[in-house]
Amino acid sequence: MAQKHTTREENYSKWYNDLVDRAELAENSGVRGCMVIKPYGYAIWEKIQAQLDTMFKETGHQNAYFPLFIPKSLFEAEEKNAEGFAKECAVVTHYRLKTDPNDKTKLIVDPEAKLEEELIVRPTSEAIIWNTYKGWIQSYRDLPLLINQWANVVRWEMRTRLFLRTSEFLWQEGHTAHATKTEAVAEAEQMLDVYTEFAENFMSMPVIRGRKSESERFAGADDTYCIEAMMQDGKALQAGTSHFLGQNFAKAFDVKFADKEGKLDHVWATSWGVSTRLMGALIMTHSDDEGLVLPPKLAPIQVVIIPIYKNEEELEAISAEAKALAAKLKQLGISVKYDDNDNRRPGWKFAEYEVKGVPVRVAIGPRDLAAGNAEVVRRDTKEKAVMPLEGLDAHIAQLMEDIQTNLFERAKAFRAANIRKVDTYAEFKEKLEKEGGFFLVHWDGTIETEAKIKEETQATIRCIPLDAEEETGTCMVTGKPSSRRVVIAKAY
Amino acid sequence: MAQKHTTREENYSKWYNDLVDRAELAENSGVRGCMVIKPYGYAIWEKIQAQLDTMFKETGHQNAYFPLFIPKSLFEAEEKNAEGFAKECAVVTHYRLKTDPNDKTKLIVDPEAKLEEELIVRPTSEAIIWNTYKGWIQSYRDLPLLINQWANVVRWEMRTRLFLRTSEFLWQEGHTAHATKTEAVAEAEQMLDVYTEFAENFMSMPVIRGRKSESERFAGADDTYCIEAMMQDGKALQAGTSHFLGQNFAKAFDVKFADKEGKLDHVWATSWGVSTRLMGALIMTHSDDEGLVLPPKLAPIQVVIIPIYKNEEELEAISAEAKALAAKLKQLGISVKYDDNDNRRPGWKFAEYEVKGVPVRVAIGPRDLAAGNAEVVRRDTKEKAVMPLEGLDAHIAQLMEDIQTNLFERAKAFRAANIRKVDTYAEFKEKLEKEGGFFLVHWDGTIETEAKIKEETQATIRCIPLDAEEETGTCMVTGKPSSRRVVIAKAY
Repeated sequence: MAQKHTTREENYSKWYNDLVDRAELAENSGVRGCMVIKPYGYAIWEKIQAQLDTMFKETGHQNAYFPLFIPKSLFEAEEKNAEGFAKECAVVTHYRLKTDPNDKTKLIVDPEAKLEEELIVRPTSEAIIWNTYKGWIQSYRDLPLLINQWANVVRWEMRTRLFLRTSEFLWQEGHTAHATKTEAVAEAEQMLDVYTEFAENFMSMPVIRGRKSESERFAGADDTYCIEAMMQDGKALQAGTSHFLGQNFAKAFDVKFADKEGKLDHVWATSWGVSTRLMGALIMTHSDDEGLVLPPKLAPIQVVIIPIYKNEEELEAISAEAKALAAKLKQLGISVKYDDNDNRRPGWKFAEYEVKGVPVRVAIGPRDLAAGNAEVVRRDTKEKAVMPLEGLDAHIAQLMEDIQTNLFERAKAFRAANIRKVDTYAEFKEKLEKEGGFFLVHWDGTIETEAKIKEETQATIRCIPLDAEEETGTCMVTGKPSSRRVVIAKAY
Repeated sequence: MAQKHTTREENYSKWYNDLVDRAELAENSGVRGCMVIKPYGYAIWEKIQAQLDTMFKETGHQNAYFPLFIPKSLFEAEEKNAEGFAKECAVVTHYRLKTDPNDKTKLIVDPEAKLEEELIVRPTSEAIIWNTYKGWIQSYRDLPLLINQWANVVRWEMRTRLFLRTSEFLWQEGHTAHATKTEAVAEAEQMLDVYTEFAENFMSMPVIRGRKSESERFAGADDTYCIEAMMQDGKALQAGTSHFLGQNFAKAFDVKFADKEGKLDHVWATSWGVSTRLMGALIMTHSDDEGLVLPPKLAPIQVVIIPIYKNEEELEAISAEAKALAAKLKQLGISVKYDDNDNRRPGWKFAEYEVKGVPVRVAIGPRDLAAGNAEVVRRDTKEKAVMPLEGLDAHIAQLMEDIQTNLFERAKAFRAANIRKVDTYAEFKEKLEKEGGFFLVHWDGTIETEAKIKEETQATIRCIPLDAEEETGTCMVTGKPSSRRVVIAKAY
């Protein structure tokens, strides 16, 4: 039972890896850097997908699907984008295997089946999509074009970690086309709002909304917006990005539209995405030393009911009540599992659903039943309460909201306690090492200073917050003037 | 307006291609053999996915996700499977591009970034999944393992057609593991039932359930079950397959389990899948010379309401009624689009929704409105009726069911009219050429005879129907004895 697991305190990184394993979320595969997302992990991802998909559709977007492969010549059309991803591209060069003439049980790549042009496995789809949009956009009537794709992408990574950095990952990528710059910027901002709402209201994860510095921008973008979340070790995790792409891709792929007066101009673009990385963010924002903690809105199982019994007769009586409760909860839209599996003891089940982060656990034993009660335990606070079965469904419905809110408030309080304004580079370096967390500092806005900070401290400018007040100050490194503070932290 | 389109009669193949284009379902991409699924086509695919996913979950399956790539050594482990797919594999050999030293604007594959072991882009996932199951299965308690994956797969095809045969396609693949042969066979049969129910009740497409002959079996299977549908040109389309894999993959990947007595044995397996090919089947089963015809259960828009007006005042009065009707329909769970776009004339809209296969069109003009009426047109029969707005929502709800049923009955009648029992090879060859369709014939069960028929007529044994009556007869080619008739046809 009470097996000892690595705690956050002992080894944060090992705690994360163990938790992903113990909660059966994902595992490494036989393919370098690629993960297997296990059923329970995938069920959480499905909840994430379903909610985001609804929000994308509510804001007027449609889904479509574009090819996995990008011919090299298309890939290199937008130079900055190509340059940004070239070093991590998986490349298909052949289209056939044949039997190894030296060993009939083996296969070798057939040298005669070499592709005339190599195909890049998409690391992101701007190139193939803008090459397609060229045929879809002629006039202002074809705009805006608001499309999203759910897909797998591949970026060859040397050091990988489950969910946080994998060579293949799942994501959604929105790609929109607009008649004006203003409209495209508004779209990029709108999608940042959608991501913010999702992070805060569904993941219970507070985020800072901001702009990336030039050197942290998406390759090929004129401007990158992002949401940054603080993990429990004080490090930052970029949870979503939305890019204003200017006319860069329209120019690279020659996509023009005629306005109402018949004047031709290049189209304005955005792209935006979140990925299975959100799973890592979700895990690291709320979980504790016992296991995963899930906000109710993203929990595949919101309530588990466990019977405690010694014989068939007791089980039958408990089951009747438990099933009635489950039915009432389902009517309220709450997902319930009644676990009467006879092969496992209650203690084993308690530990199992705790590590899986099920928000509420209800246990019913013969004594509870006799008194018309049940034991109710919240996963977030571990509070235990004996409650009457009568009205328990309504109480649990309220608990769902309470837990959702409590997780958000708790994460917000943690962030507030670990975000510091500092004004000198010495203080910054000292506190970064000793205390970690986010730092609000003045920066002179130059690439050189940014590079120096990164080199000397491994911290990066996470973003220039959108809602930062104007504040006159001087760069903590160079003493040059600055008009607002930026967020700096070590990051995933 | 009344633009002339290719009819089925004139050129069936061109009719299909034109329809896919006109209805904006999909198009060829800049990548050889890979398609772009356009928003309207993808919306239909999403309906297909949602329904199948529900049915998979109702039968106890969970989703998961496995890597896109399969290392060559894993791929070749199950020999028959590897041999079956080797000739159509896309192979990743490198993981980096670099700037072309001869032209700074170009990229070349970096020869120093050659993979030690080539990676196959999955043509199907048995190998990578069974390599994973090895770690998941130790005891009978871990069984059955019932998993499904929604994914893209790649099979390098030389001759491609949108939806029907593409190098990359989207699909779902179920992969299950069982303690006994009986249980695995039952699973394979159950999933064939699920596919049958989906095809008949949701796609309104009648199918013949059967077993594949040995030479048409999935590579690596002991038995392949299939559903076969008849297209409007009389050709067969394999719409779904379910495989009993025996212990082949368990042996190739050494997956054993301990039974209750502790005895070790290899696990029994199934796999089953349907793909975006179903889109082609859906299109070719119901559509007519005017365009797509969709069964209501899979139509992204089930009802379109079009106002006919000369001025703002008329539009306002019509809109009030139209919106009230739309609201009532939505309450009944019917998806509605009210198209009051002022840039398009009603005639243009009529043609547009006709080609897109929207099941019911409602038009409301000032005269209809004055009389409290609307014009209602069914897409399947093109019947027009003027109906009172009062109670129209209930009438349309009934129409949804009627259209769904009518499409199924129509397709069934078409199939019945084009399925023939023949007893001599001469008659078979003559009727196959002149009339096409499906043929019920006696076959001696040998690979040689099957090959001869295929070579001489291009027709293949589609299946040995599961519900065929025993009937003594003699093979139409060799005169050898046969105990039941098989279905032979030309196929997609």
